Amino acid sequence: MDKKYSLGVDYGTNSVRALIVDLATGEEVGTCVYAYPSGKDGIILDDNDANFARENPMDFVLGMEVSVKGAIEQASSVAGFSSGDIIGIGIDTTGSTPIPVGEDGMPLSFQDRFKGNPNAMAWLWKDHTSHEEAELINRKAHEYKIDYTKYSGGIYSSEWFFSKIFHLANVDPEVFNAAASFVEHCDWMPALLSGNTDPKQIKRSRCAAGHKAMWHEEWGGLPSQDFLSSLSPKLDGLYAKLYTDTFTSDTNVGGLCAEWAGKLGLREGIAVSVGAFDAHMGAVGAGIKPGALVKIMGTSTCDMMVAPELHTQIKGICGQVDGSVVPGMVGLEAGQSAVGDIFAWYRDQIRWPIENLLPLSSISSVLTGDKLAELMEEAKGLFFSVLTDRASKFKTGQSGLLALDWLNGNRTVLVDPNLSGAIIGLTLGTKPEEIFMSLIEATAYGARVIIERFEEYGVKVDQIITCGGLAEKNPFLMQIYADVTGRPMKVSRSSQTCALGAALFGAVAGGAFANVEQAQSAISGLKDVVYTPDPENSKTYNKLFRYYKTLHDSLGTREYSDHLYEVMKGLLEIKRSARA
Amino acid sequence: MDKKYSLGVDYGTNSVRALIVDLATGEEVGTCVYAYPSGKDGIILDDNDANFARENPMDFVLGMEVSVKGAIEQASSVAGFSSGDIIGIGIDTTGSTPIPVGEDGMPLSFQDRFKGNPNAMAWLWKDHTSHEEAELINRKAHEYKIDYTKYSGGIYSSEWFFSKIFHLANVDPEVFNAAASFVEHCDWMPALLSGNTDPKQIKRSRCAAGHKAMWHEEWGGLPSQDFLSSLSPKLDGLYAKLYTDTFTSDTNVGGLCAEWAGKLGLREGIAVSVGAFDAHMGAVGAGIKPGALVKIMGTSTCDMMVAPELHTQIKGICGQVDGSVVPGMVGLEAGQSAVGDIFAWYRDQIRWPIENLLPLSSISSVLTGDKLAELMEEAKGLFFSVLTDRASKFKTGQSGLLALDWLNGNRTVLVDPNLSGAIIGLTLGTKPEEIFMSLIEATAYGARVIIERFEEYGVKVDQIITCGGLAEKNPFLMQIYADVTGRPMKVSRSSQTCALGAALFGAVAGGAFANVEQAQSAISGLKDVVYTPDPENSKTYNKLFRYYKTLHDSLGTREYSDHLYEVMKGLLEIKRSARA
Repeated sequence: MDKKYSLGVDYGTNSVRALIVDLATGEEVGTCVYAYPSGKDGIILDDNDANFARENPMDFVLGMEVSVKGAIEQASSVAGFSSGDIIGIGIDTTGSTPIPVGEDGMPLSFQDRFKGNPNAMAWLWKDHTSHEEAELINRKAHEYKIDYTKYSGGIYSSEWFFSKIFHLANVDPEVFNAAASFVEHCDWMPALLSGNTDPKQIKRSRCAAGHKAMWHEEWGGLPSQDFLSSLSPKLDGLYAKLYTDTFTSDTNVGGLCAEWAGKLGLREGIAVSVGAFDAHMGAVGAGIKPGALVKIMGTSTCDMMVAPELHTQIKGICGQVDGSVVPGMVGLEAGQSAVGDIFAWYRDQIRWPIENLLPLSSISSVLTGDKLAELMEEAKGLFFSVLTDRASKFKTGQSGLLALDWLNGNRTVLVDPNLSGAIIGLTLGTKPEEIFMSLIEATAYGARVIIERFEEYGVKVDQIITCGGLAEKNPFLMQIYADVTGRPMKVSRSSQTCALGAALFGAVAGGAFANVEQAQSAISGLKDVVYTPDPENSKTYNKLFRYYKTLHDSLGTREYSDHLYEVMKGLLEIKRSARA
Repeated sequence: MDKKYSLGVDYGTNSVRALIVDLATGEEVGTCVYAYPSGKDGIILDDNDANFARENPMDFVLGMEVSVKGAIEQASSVAGFSSGDIIGIGIDTTGSTPIPVGEDGMPLSFQDRFKGNPNAMAWLWKDHTSHEEAELINRKAHEYKIDYTKYSGGIYSSEWFFSKIFHLANVDPEVFNAAASFVEHCDWMPALLSGNTDPKQIKRSRCAAGHKAMWHEEWGGLPSQDFLSSLSPKLDGLYAKLYTDTFTSDTNVGGLCAEWAGKLGLREGIAVSVGAFDAHMGAVGAGIKPGALVKIMGTSTCDMMVAPELHTQIKGICGQVDGSVVPGMVGLEAGQSAVGDIFAWYRDQIRWPIENLLPLSSISSVLTGDKLAELMEEAKGLFFSVLTDRASKFKTGQSGLLALDWLNGNRTVLVDPNLSGAIIGLTLGTKPEEIFMSLIEATAYGARVIIERFEEYGVKVDQIITCGGLAEKNPFLMQIYADVTGRPMKVSRSSQTCALGAALFGAVAGGAFANVEQAQSAISGLKDVVYTPDPENSKTYNKLFRYYKTLHDSLGTREYSDHLYEVMKGLLEIKRSARA
């Protein structure tokens, strides 16, 4: 049989990865990562505004060429590989990361008059400059005859498409008015490769549209011009610049154009599939199917499921979009706003004196600056291993601590960014390794809340497949997750499931498989390791989880009383006023 | 006019201080501190039991001689001083610190057969070996026809007189049975100096008896033999070994005996006043009077008031005893179980990597052990100043944090050692200096709860006088206390108010003044500095204090619902089981 390969291109926050997969075996034969050269780690920042985060679309273009050629070069050392046997390309990106484009469909920042203007570049998912616009969208949507936030868990985020476009209209009308359309990063890349970036013809991703742009068949696509104009007259005419149709990622946007085929050293005309967001393609690469919850575990988590049909909206699940993950099924997106970020926060708390006190002591007169910096870095690097080593000797529950994992708000099930973290049970005997462990446990309780919410609404969780940095590298944490949830934690075989999922869609669009499920059987899989719950620990964690839920509902809802909910909100309000 | 002096001897946890005061001016003309030589910092510990804490009464005897002679030597360089002009001696000690004594009134550890046996020594206030006995005492007292805990806030502590004696009966019956009586440290020292330690004649302190031994006129003194026997038949006969009468500290126990006059270089026959606990005499030294709340602020706080009469029991105020502080008035004792200890805990949290990570790095191959240890010590020492410096630039409320100061339980107003600390409002942006400040604020809110409780029951707080380490050395904290309470914080002039108070009682017992109030006018006073509340900050703190009270009542009481109270208790229960 002839060899066939597919190429996945995964645009992350700081870099892009290309991956070539053998479609018969799932073997990953070549990969290459290109770090975006612009800004700080690829992100263009504003020193005066911590909410600001943009990316330079030129990095995306350069990154495509460099990463793909690098992956091909690596694959070339594998026996039997030929770049001519690559039959499709799939692409995923971060999102919502919209780009204002001109009549030619190219980013406005490519035009001389907007060169260097970050407003004319890509508005990175984590840009939060649009929070006021998001608030207005939410208020208006809840008043409007159609609640457009219905399939997004009832809250529209400042990270999403319309918030950002609206903010652009407010702060830089020149760029806003010059835009012929606004295109998600994940829609723009496939269009570019196909050689057709005409904004009217770009095939928009169902995933991006449904999860971040309030697109739904129920109301005929995007929110109406009437609604957009109710937000501001500045948005008059916006609807016509956008789109009505959306496509699932098994669709070929059109063949690879001659120009890009030449640049990349690939065959002209091979399939380029419709793009999607990284977590969604990652879930597919990890082996998502009905009954399997895929957890992508890193700085935050994405918790994805698919269901053949859904009879009701699930309260607090942020996105529920037909075909957004696997064509023909409803894609369900949940998540925790901070997981790895919480541990990094605690590491920074506790390494504070190394950075802040040591250099003030006379050590700096004993050791030269460089040597000191090097030793400090080394000491800081020991943080996780030493704490984990000590915490792993604990009996479950012995710290007496209980934490709430809301240091970056709560995405699922409360869908409320204006919540904060907490810890109770502190005594004069409390040790750092106990706090560290309680923070891990808190994220595990948060994970269990999501699982239980799915099941409450009839979406049965038969298995959990994990992937991402924490799943790969943190057996201590994974065991706690198994114990807390009382469920085995499986781990995806690939350590680059997003790029793998993209390659998989490229292969389906290229006709190598009849559908996503067949492609998954061929190229997705699990590692041998499974973290199995310890029954004794699970028993204790069942009690502790009930306490977590009480704390969760006391501080994050009005379930038991208004009192603590108002403290939670009031503290953030006072904080905001004090900093204003 | 002839010069007159008084001598105060203040027995602390680790050392004893003697102080000589000029009774005309309040000038402190000589002082000397003697550190107890036994055990670790004067405390005899048990490696296998963290609750264990005893002291060697021989240290007390030696300490009297060395410290008094040292103070006299220092005073001798002051013009006009003569040790013959010392007209009285007052003594305060820690408590409850009972000593089992023989027929001769001397500690059983002085007898050959009990030499070196810590059970025959002084049971230091912070010995917690008696927690099971304390639990039983509480249960029985609440069932009994008289609730003997009525004037101790409803809870009898494991730190107190009967818990310790009961525990001795359980663990070392030989010592228990050999004891002719049990004498508080503060009662034994004056008896020793007077040359009459006959257990039947030792003048027992109203302060110790009323606050820690359930002594009250209402039920004719100590709890009855019937009650004691209901605890255990082992306590049969105990009542007869104890006492009925108690005395206020303006009483002379009898003149200084010839032997001790000789040892100390003082005139035979000068007054030795009835002893009392350190915080109580400290409050008098600081200038306590009706309307003045005296806060002794250190690792924990004691908050003392006196009232001419009291028509009702104040809920949650631990001790309310006639004459315990100032003769003729009701002494009221409240306090916070941890204040300075909380900041020390946080310092230990955050300096953890310096102690735990740095030595694991290759720095130990670059710097020799001693040099490294020295530099580490130096860096750790910067902790408070650097954090304070940064926190002092904050606007009130800007951290968004709210903490509960219960890391060692809550003494006033909940009288519940089984509570734990909490912090809410944490975000990924939270900095150590913000947590540090929130902990200071939490202790200030706790202080305000006490003030408000006094006033709710009609004991008006007209002024607040502070003393102790934090009051002396931490202007940043003192300003927060002023802002949080909305009241000026005055500071006692003397930095050794306990020894000063003891000297004052020695002077009253010696007839130099008609009463305590006259003595205070002559020798107590305030520093010039007063911390005055900033109206803007107070406004914000009023809001935050309401949130604190909500958190306080939600976690520490069943006021709003049972839910969180049960989480608080349940966590401690799980912790206990896990460690068992």
